[in-house]
Amino acid sequence: MSQRLKNHLRKYVTFSDSELEDILSHFRLVSYAKKDLLLQEGHVCTQKFFIVEGLVRSYHLDSKGNEKINQFAIENWWITNVESFVTGTPSSSSIEAIEPTLVLSIDKNTIESLYIKFPKLERYFRIITENMLIAIQRRYEVFLQLKSKARYLNFMNQLPEFSQRVPQYMIASYLEITPEYLSELRKA
Amino acid sequence: MSQRLKNHLRKYVTFSDSELEDILSHFRLVSYAKKDLLLQEGHVCTQKFFIVEGLVRSYHLDSKGNEKINQFAIENWWITNVESFVTGTPSSSSIEAIEPTLVLSIDKNTIESLYIKFPKLERYFRIITENMLIAIQRRYEVFLQLKSKARYLNFMNQLPEFSQRVPQYMIASYLEITPEYLSELRKA
Repeated sequence: MSQRLKNHLRKYVTFSDSELEDILSHFRLVSYAKKDLLLQEGHVCTQKFFIVEGLVRSYHLDSKGNEKINQFAIENWWITNVESFVTGTPSSSSIEAIEPTLVLSIDKNTIESLYIKFPKLERYFRIITENMLIAIQRRYEVFLQLKSKARYLNFMNQLPEFSQRVPQYMIASYLEITPEYLSELRKA
Repeated sequence: MSQRLKNHLRKYVTFSDSELEDILSHFRLVSYAKKDLLLQEGHVCTQKFFIVEGLVRSYHLDSKGNEKINQFAIENWWITNVESFVTGTPSSSSIEAIEPTLVLSIDKNTIESLYIKFPKLERYFRIITENMLIAIQRRYEVFLQLKSKARYLNFMNQLPEFSQRVPQYMIASYLEITPEYLSELRKA
């Protein structure tokens, strides 16, 4: 189960076997059923989650009580509420399992001490955080620039695996288009 | 001139005097006149810029040729096009001085070798990148959630210094409202 995370760590930074064993020993393997919450809006997010298997979404409720999805994550992705994790303030979003999901989770205090012990881990997360920044910038540029049909085509193109696994009404929410219009686009 | 960056580095990570001297010796102090470009859209961004004095904006041209501003930066802020810097692809945005501006700039190869020599510098940029991620998430949440008047009040509240120094028409562009409506909001 931890092999996937080991591979991911090694994709970006060179670690010895014993370093990886030590680092991995601090993670907890946690299993979530479909619809279980990994994080609840309003709670402080103290964990980073690495998806070993499954699919999750991050969302919040808008002022009218509608769910607004701001991120999906599948195998090999990290997910957390960065602002809540870094600042210790209540999370503005929930994270929910869409499929039965297995994660490796690590809490803030543990990761801080691992950064001290393994500066290379800090390198890994410096790179991962840059990649998250790039991903979120791309997402919002798409939103600000593209019309809904172009948004859909961009999503299908950039994240084809998601479009297979995520329920259609959730894709519609993520793209901020109606499920009816999404259905039309899929038929076109 | 480099004292400002030294203070900023020490705000997040403990460095010795000699470490800071070594690190700072790799930065170039560059001065830009008003309207000079630090980075041109379509070029690969090979630098990170730390603003010592002045004010810059990052913007791109939309399909109709209109300028879309996505970031301002003043003293003590870092600015770059992260995607271009990390991936080596052409930058989707330009960075332009709004005031006469003095920056400390560092290029990608140099910073990569400094990360190896000073893992603490990697710690600093891991933290800075997390903060950038939080800032961009906040900005886009505001866009997706708030109406134009609320966006303006949020901007005035979060970035009061900017509202004093940035020309009104640029604030309007950043908030995606018309200059006329901004003028009405300011009088209200």
